[in-house]
Amino acid sequence: MQIKLPKKALVTGAAGFLGSHLCRRLLDDGYEVTAVDNLFTGTRRNIYPLLENRRFQFVLHDITLPFWGQFDEIYNLACPASPFHYQHNPVETIKTSVLGIINMLELALKTKAKILQASTSEVYGDPLVHPQTETYWGNVNTIGIRSCYDEGKRCAETLMADFRREWGVDARIVRIFNTYGPNMHPKDGRVISNFIMQALHNEDITLFGDGLQTRSFQYCDDLIEAMRRYMDKPRAEIDAFFSTRRLGVPVINTGNPGEYTIKQLAEATLKLIPESKSRLVYLPLPADDPKRRKPDIALATELLGWAPKVPLAEGLEKTIGYFRGL
Amino acid sequence: MQIKLPKKALVTGAAGFLGSHLCRRLLDDGYEVTAVDNLFTGTRRNIYPLLENRRFQFVLHDITLPFWGQFDEIYNLACPASPFHYQHNPVETIKTSVLGIINMLELALKTKAKILQASTSEVYGDPLVHPQTETYWGNVNTIGIRSCYDEGKRCAETLMADFRREWGVDARIVRIFNTYGPNMHPKDGRVISNFIMQALHNEDITLFGDGLQTRSFQYCDDLIEAMRRYMDKPRAEIDAFFSTRRLGVPVINTGNPGEYTIKQLAEATLKLIPESKSRLVYLPLPADDPKRRKPDIALATELLGWAPKVPLAEGLEKTIGYFRGL
Repeated sequence: MQIKLPKKALVTGAAGFLGSHLCRRLLDDGYEVTAVDNLFTGTRRNIYPLLENRRFQFVLHDITLPFWGQFDEIYNLACPASPFHYQHNPVETIKTSVLGIINMLELALKTKAKILQASTSEVYGDPLVHPQTETYWGNVNTIGIRSCYDEGKRCAETLMADFRREWGVDARIVRIFNTYGPNMHPKDGRVISNFIMQALHNEDITLFGDGLQTRSFQYCDDLIEAMRRYMDKPRAEIDAFFSTRRLGVPVINTGNPGEYTIKQLAEATLKLIPESKSRLVYLPLPADDPKRRKPDIALATELLGWAPKVPLAEGLEKTIGYFRGL
Repeated sequence: MQIKLPKKALVTGAAGFLGSHLCRRLLDDGYEVTAVDNLFTGTRRNIYPLLENRRFQFVLHDITLPFWGQFDEIYNLACPASPFHYQHNPVETIKTSVLGIINMLELALKTKAKILQASTSEVYGDPLVHPQTETYWGNVNTIGIRSCYDEGKRCAETLMADFRREWGVDARIVRIFNTYGPNMHPKDGRVISNFIMQALHNEDITLFGDGLQTRSFQYCDDLIEAMRRYMDKPRAEIDAFFSTRRLGVPVINTGNPGEYTIKQLAEATLKLIPESKSRLVYLPLPADDPKRRKPDIALATELLGWAPKVPLAEGLEKTIGYFRGL
């Protein structure tokens, strides 16, 4: 008889919004999950339900310091992701992205683990082409107030590419566009959590600029599905797929290509919170705020047979339910 | 009687091409100079003549590790700067840029030193606008074979900007365009050293692509003059100058706006080495090689009253003289 041991996954940023969803999914898929977080923006509350699972363990650790253990798969999600949080200490934000990925890549190298880097649509900055494909190089300010996040994430991609080219690490990059859902930080300053919190508290709903800048909104479950399919692909398939493309390095966009204006989002939110007495108000646009961003997901669809499934109204409703329960 | 002690400067990458020129100039200006280099691409030969000066000391050190000392001014020039060298170990290249500047900025913060970061025209990547002004955000591939240098330098700029905004460090960025002169590494694979070495050894002169891509060539003395004037400016003047501009953070281009095709450079080199039997040959263009780059130096001119003075023929002649003597 052959004993089948569970595969071992390391998730960094595990107590954050996306990390907590990913941990749950990995447990559902039968993995043994080691969850690492420094709890700067992540919260233990996000993983309370997981702590009962014997295949789950939480480690309080900051990935700017090395971390060791034997894993089959590493999911590097650690980094404050909202301007409000990442601007709190920009230098730590860069260290988390750059030193964090160096430590994780060194771990992947020594233990021959697959590694997934949670990159971001922010690497495209304020894009000059629409929608953004993975071959677009981006339009990013190096010295602005958002740069600590954008450039840290760009540099992390570079390190992924170099560890792959130099030492053959099975490194896979996913560029995550705007994603929302339960377990979002209620005070992260992002547009969806802002709008829901404001509507629930009958406060003015604040739109920046004219509110006509568009965003795409991906429900968290759709993203996690893409990540899992991506990591499940055998290396040979990944290598073959990307070697024939200009990219060379495995990198896919995930996001929901449906475009909504910020104003439409505000209206959709208010519709789902009919008791709210909030009104829309307009404030000046902050520096370097991208005016428009929309993912081209053709590559992910071709590689993974994946497309987002959850419509905005449905995802918003679940998210509002979560915020109501807080 | 008041005793006037010399100002103290720290130069990283001091045994490199530009570092060695900067050290000499600082000694000429009366500074006490601490010269740091890990000697990966730098060479002690570049600083032999300086070792006799009692105000000069060399320290073998790698700035990816912290370094302490009391200085008035820090000039951070450490980083392999030619593709041939920086691709040798791309991960170390990024560490030198990112960990290096973090260590130097922490030193500047604790000792209240001014700090100059030697950034690069490579932050503009393969630019979509010509000439490049400091407000241009660049067009850089995050996952290509040049990215370790480009993204490392971009991230270093971000750290400069953030240390300045967060903790008031007197951080000044200079984006250096193609620069040449004596003490260049003869095997750095850069176009000027390549052409001179090939011409002196009667080897084929290799042009990539059609040789019609243009470059600008700044003689090293012109750059060092700009750096010294930049660092001599009182902080209040720097702050006033940049606060009224969209940039916010002190950053200037230095380079020579004169544009030459690679082919013109080859011909000028051969003219100065009349005994050479070399012929021009054409090879395919390497990946991500920028097709054109030209500095807009209006900002440096306005701030420093500076413009490059040394014509290409004169600078080439001095450089050829140096290579002949090797």
